[in-house]
Amino acid sequence: MSGGAKPRIGFIGIGAMGWPMAACLLKAGYEVLPFDARPEQVEAFLAEVGGTRVGSLAALGAASDVVITILPTSKVVETVLFGPDGVASGLRAGAVVIDMTSGVPDQTVRFAEALEGQGAALFDAPVSGGVARAATGELTIMAGGPDALIEAAMPVLLTMGAVIRTGGLGSGHAMKALNNLVSAGGFLIGIEALLIGARFGLDPETMVDILNVSTGVNNSTQKKFKQFVLSRSFDSGFPIELMVKDLTTAMEVARSGGVNAPFSGLCRDLWAGAAAMLGPRADHTAVARLSETLAGSTLESKT
Amino acid sequence: MSGGAKPRIGFIGIGAMGWPMAACLLKAGYEVLPFDARPEQVEAFLAEVGGTRVGSLAALGAASDVVITILPTSKVVETVLFGPDGVASGLRAGAVVIDMTSGVPDQTVRFAEALEGQGAALFDAPVSGGVARAATGELTIMAGGPDALIEAAMPVLLTMGAVIRTGGLGSGHAMKALNNLVSAGGFLIGIEALLIGARFGLDPETMVDILNVSTGVNNSTQKKFKQFVLSRSFDSGFPIELMVKDLTTAMEVARSGGVNAPFSGLCRDLWAGAAAMLGPRADHTAVARLSETLAGSTLESKT
Amino acid sequence: MSGGAKPRIGFIGIGAMGWPMAACLLKAGYEVLPFDARPEQVEAFLAEVGGTRVGSLAALGAASDVVITILPTSKVVETVLFGPDGVASGLRAGAVVIDMTSGVPDQTVRFAEALEGQGAALFDAPVSGGVARAATGELTIMAGGPDALIEAAMPVLLTMGAVIRTGGLGSGHAMKALNNLVSAGGFLIGIEALLIGARFGLDPETMVDILNVSTGVNNSTQKKFKQFVLSRSFDSGFPIELMVKDLTTAMEVARSGGVNAPFSGLCRDLWAGAAAMLGPRADHTAVARLSETLAGSTLESKT
Amino acid sequence: MSGGAKPRIGFIGIGAMGWPMAACLLKAGYEVLPFDARPEQVEAFLAEVGGTRVGSLAALGAASDVVITILPTSKVVETVLFGPDGVASGLRAGAVVIDMTSGVPDQTVRFAEALEGQGAALFDAPVSGGVARAATGELTIMAGGPDALIEAAMPVLLTMGAVIRTGGLGSGHAMKALNNLVSAGGFLIGIEALLIGARFGLDPETMVDILNVSTGVNNSTQKKFKQFVLSRSFDSGFPIELMVKDLTTAMEVARSGGVNAPFSGLCRDLWAGAAAMLGPRADHTAVARLSETLAGSTLESKT
Ligand SMILES: NC(=O)C1=CN([C@@H]2O[C@H](COP(=O)(O)OP(=O)(O)OC[C@H]3O[C@@H](n4cnc5c(N)ncnc54)[C@H](OP(=O)(O)O)[C@@H]3O)[C@@H](O)[C@H]2O)C=CC1
Ligand SMILES: NC(=O)C1=CN([C@@H]2O[C@H](COP(=O)(O)OP(=O)(O)OC[C@H]3O[C@@H](n4cnc5c(N)ncnc54)[C@H](OP(=O)(O)O)[C@@H]3O)[C@@H](O)[C@H]2O)C=CC1
Ligand SMILES: NC(=O)C1=CN([C@@H]2O[C@H](COP(=O)(O)OP(=O)(O)OC[C@H]3O[C@@H](n4cnc5c(N)ncnc54)[C@H](OP(=O)(O)O)[C@@H]3O)[C@@H](O)[C@H]2O)C=CC1
Repeated sequence: MSGGAKPRIGFIGIGAMGWPMAACLLKAGYEVLPFDARPEQVEAFLAEVGGTRVGSLAALGAASDVVITILPTSKVVETVLFGPDGVASGLRAGAVVIDMTSGVPDQTVRFAEALEGQGAALFDAPVSGGVARAATGELTIMAGGPDALIEAAMPVLLTMGAVIRTGGLGSGHAMKALNNLVSAGGFLIGIEALLIGARFGLDPETMVDILNVSTGVNNSTQKKFKQFVLSRSFDSGFPIELMVKDLTTAMEVARSGGVNAPFSGLCRDLWAGAAAMLGPRADHTAVARLSETLAGSTLESKT
Repeated sequence: MSGGAKPRIGFIGIGAMGWPMAACLLKAGYEVLPFDARPEQVEAFLAEVGGTRVGSLAALGAASDVVITILPTSKVVETVLFGPDGVASGLRAGAVVIDMTSGVPDQTVRFAEALEGQGAALFDAPVSGGVARAATGELTIMAGGPDALIEAAMPVLLTMGAVIRTGGLGSGHAMKALNNLVSAGGFLIGIEALLIGARFGLDPETMVDILNVSTGVNNSTQKKFKQFVLSRSFDSGFPIELMVKDLTTAMEVARSGGVNAPFSGLCRDLWAGAAAMLGPRADHTAVARLSETLAGSTLESKT
Repeated sequence: MSGGAKPRIGFIGIGAMGWPMAACLLKAGYEVLPFDARPEQVEAFLAEVGGTRVGSLAALGAASDVVITILPTSKVVETVLFGPDGVASGLRAGAVVIDMTSGVPDQTVRFAEALEGQGAALFDAPVSGGVARAATGELTIMAGGPDALIEAAMPVLLTMGAVIRTGGLGSGHAMKALNNLVSAGGFLIGIEALLIGARFGLDPETMVDILNVSTGVNNSTQKKFKQFVLSRSFDSGFPIELMVKDLTTAMEVARSGGVNAPFSGLCRDLWAGAAAMLGPRADHTAVARLSETLAGSTLESKT
Repeated sequence: MSGGAKPRIGFIGIGAMGWPMAACLLKAGYEVLPFDARPEQVEAFLAEVGGTRVGSLAALGAASDVVITILPTSKVVETVLFGPDGVASGLRAGAVVIDMTSGVPDQTVRFAEALEGQGAALFDAPVSGGVARAATGELTIMAGGPDALIEAAMPVLLTMGAVIRTGGLGSGHAMKALNNLVSAGGFLIGIEALLIGARFGLDPETMVDILNVSTGVNNSTQKKFKQFVLSRSFDSGFPIELMVKDLTTAMEVARSGGVNAPFSGLCRDLWAGAAAMLGPRADHTAVARLSETLAGSTLESKT
């Protein structure tokens, strides 16, 4: 990634998150080469937002100074980078891959090592904030990897959000998974509290209001309970399988480090059990349905 | 509690919370009769803040229009109200007891029924916000009980904080316990996440910073982890036995309602296990020490 | 209960357990007065097995030297004993109630105290062994209460099974609940192990065979997994609501004693969650269906 | 392993289990080449029991028709087989390695594949039964791998115990881990039940007696509670780190298969937490000390 001119950016994964993030880059004046498994998605993006059409992953690799991936899982990132005619087959020496997927630390280290041989680099920069903050370029970006690499990429990253350095390679992915663990735990305990209170006779909406001005406040009490659970809409846009993926990553990081975390373990298992019950594409907020099944009670807003 | 004049307030429990709350009432012009198990505590309050000395609980009952209790547990409230020469023995018809203790809903209903016979009333109004917001009169007050009763007491309550109506008798106490359940769950999962991340190599302070701008944010990540855990001070001022009391109350409300809540159950049991390990007077933030014991790892800030 | 002659026995609860137990008494030469909420059940027993018809609970009380209760819950025992025209209203001084229900220790103590006033006594003697061992008079009977009382009743008890003394009043009920806790825990962990192994490719029947000759053996691996789960018959005859009742009793004993037991707590909550999902009348072995739902996998025998 | 003559057996791991197992082979007339990390242990075995001295792992490999490994972990097996001058470097085409270690299925498959290249084979045959049944040649042996391979080795295996076929490669190791999961779960719930009952006033010895004749019976109630816990001897000879290893293996099998097992997960985490608290070399029965710490109570026999 040379000094003066703006790098040309291959952008892979024009999904719920990727679309608005790629749009931020275009708005900031970068040349963007969008790519996705669904060609019609790329065409829609080219038509509605802009960018340069590219024929294949190998071609994208060859044409890009920076490649951004924001895909469902590290497994998909592996296919995209190292599969037949993948990005790596075209990548130039000096190119940098920024993996913004919520991925698995171990894999990330493997990917970086695999690219090293051809003079290319990779670091992890997963995001928090959801679709809303992706649209306004106000994501929190957790960047893990060598200083020089991340410094050089800073202008690109800052276009999409605020950057926090987490440490070495894979540490961004570890942090992202742990953040989601804390978020998922707060969601689950909050839902159980609402179920207990509702059966006692408390109004769920009132309970959420009180939690939000008390020590019980968390991101889910503020942004998810009324919006997606009490409304029964269950449409936050973040599917439960992705949440379970992150929780599983968090527990794998725990296991590799030999850290025993019983409360987190049960948290993951209940979320994963809910995904087994509801199907992987259910919205993550529908985990409340498992809590309701076990509780023998339903959370309906009284108002 | 008659219309025009300001009611005279018997105030029982001049502790960490009670002292600043009684001070707010005095500042607002109420006549306050402070009482506590420790006479020297009352003397200190009279000397430093003000109020009217009263000789006994029965005398306090006889002299008060409103009696406020903010005591460790419902059991202590019972002794204070109904023990030999307790408040009830002196209480006048028309007097109102406001129990601001974090108490047990069932007991609250029993207390109110017991007072009804002598023409007095009781409702529950526990608080959230801790010592800091008690001092500034900015507590969140969860008031449960008959409308007319609470309306009449509103000026008194508003002196100490904002009031949210939770429903019938005992519902304030239920809500308070459930709030602490959500708070305690967020604390525990957050500590485990920090332990997992720290062993991986992430800096605990940085992790807290990132949680605080991400979906992992909760009251403990914001106000407790750096302050009391990473600093190793463990001196928030709220002892673990009071937290365990509230969690136990929450699970009793669950049980009476027949609501099964496995994640909350484990949360309570781990907190209670920590209290068994650390002793009841340990600070509640020291629950992290149990997580550390199980994890086989310690959370020390790197910086 | 006087010395020489055989006492006349009022027997309340001619259900799955009570029928064969009352039959054992008749076979041993006791005069038995059967009673049940369902008159047709009593008529069937009188016709098929024998006994003396009695018109009401009060009449039964008046006519009996010994009253045996084996009913769903302590709540039902309370109604039967102390409800309008209940057993207690007729009971003579010197009569003894043996509560063989799987009951709640606290309540048992209350019942005994209530009968004391009229010169009657009660002790707890719940049973283990199920319908099969009830039929052959080989139950395990856990007797809690004063020595003299139990000694005097020993001939009656020995007719139905072997007696183990557990200690004071209520201790039989506590022990019974704790036995079922251990049984329920062994069932649950065994089913999860089968689910894990089956997905790996192990044959469930073979796994049960191996557990049964290894350290994994327990009562459920021996007597329930092949019989009621792998066969998919789910017809052991012991409904899940009764198991959940016992587990709840065990956890109440824990709570009153201030004993924290996280593993038992989760065990109870998962069983209770299964009952909420499956309905209270499902067979207790169908708890496997909750484990299957959470696992995302089913246990079908390959053979 | 040719037809007629008895195979010559290299035996690696002359520990608590390996010593009596190798002794069984010698008694049955096999030539045994004992090996262990501690030379003095080998010398003691040669002097007290018999066998043929061998200079190195490579020499053992070259001289053996069958190699048996019964070592702490799959990691140790890997070093022994594939480390510098390891067994594999000397192994002849046609030789068979029988891994009787409680190992990890994935690794077992890897080891077998690695040996295939040189015409040698490996299968897993871990054991259950402990030191006592190892001495009498009455172990339960769980054999996983190709039929022909296991059939050929059957005479050797039968010398040490009864053989149950579990399926393909690694399935013996999976089964062994799952057996220990069920055993560990039964231990933990039993100890918690004893703690609850003891605080209530029940005698621990009596409780164990009752469990043993009731549905609460399991291997731990029969063979471990009085012997190692109530006696406070904690000297079963099986260290907690080995139990935690097996539980971790079981949960890895669960994870690879995508099976969610919340109760098993908590079981593993509590055992692993106990190992973190007590140190890896503590006896596995000392897990009771963690339960006691959390319960705030101790299990001492009253008698
Ligand atoms: N949604 C959210 O709120 C947040 C998501 N994240 C993380 O961001 C990442 C992306 O999430 P999100 O945008 O929601 O997911 P989406 O599923 O909406 O987007 C992923 C995109 O990648 C495409 N894709 C999948 N496989 C391939 C492939 N082999 N080659 C090229 N493209 C492929 C998908 O196409 P197709 O649809 O055909 O599979 C889809 O368009 C995940 O790791 C998630 O965990 C992080 C923070 C918040
Ligand atoms: N501290 C906090 O941050 C918060 C506390 N709460 C709740 O508020 C309540 C009070 O807590 P807090 O102020 O911290 O507790 P403290 O222990 O500081 O205060 C309680 C006071 O009551 C006194 N007391 C105890 N028994 C009697 C009695 N029989 N008669 C008269 N006085 C008695 C105590 O005296 P002694 O010291 O001699 O026992 C003490 O001075 C609790 O229910 C708590 O759960 C709610 C929100 C936040
Ligand atoms: N089944 C088993 O394997 C074992 C059961 N137990 C325990 O034994 C007890 C009895 O269980 P089980 O026999 O299976 O239960 P059942 O439900 O089969 O029997 C209970 C009987 O009591 C009757 N009954 C209910 N309410 C009343 C009432 N108010 N007055 C008179 N009779 C009433 C029931 O009638 P109706 O059907 O109309 O309600 C029923 O016939 C329970 O406490 C159980 O936990 C202990 C060990 C094993």
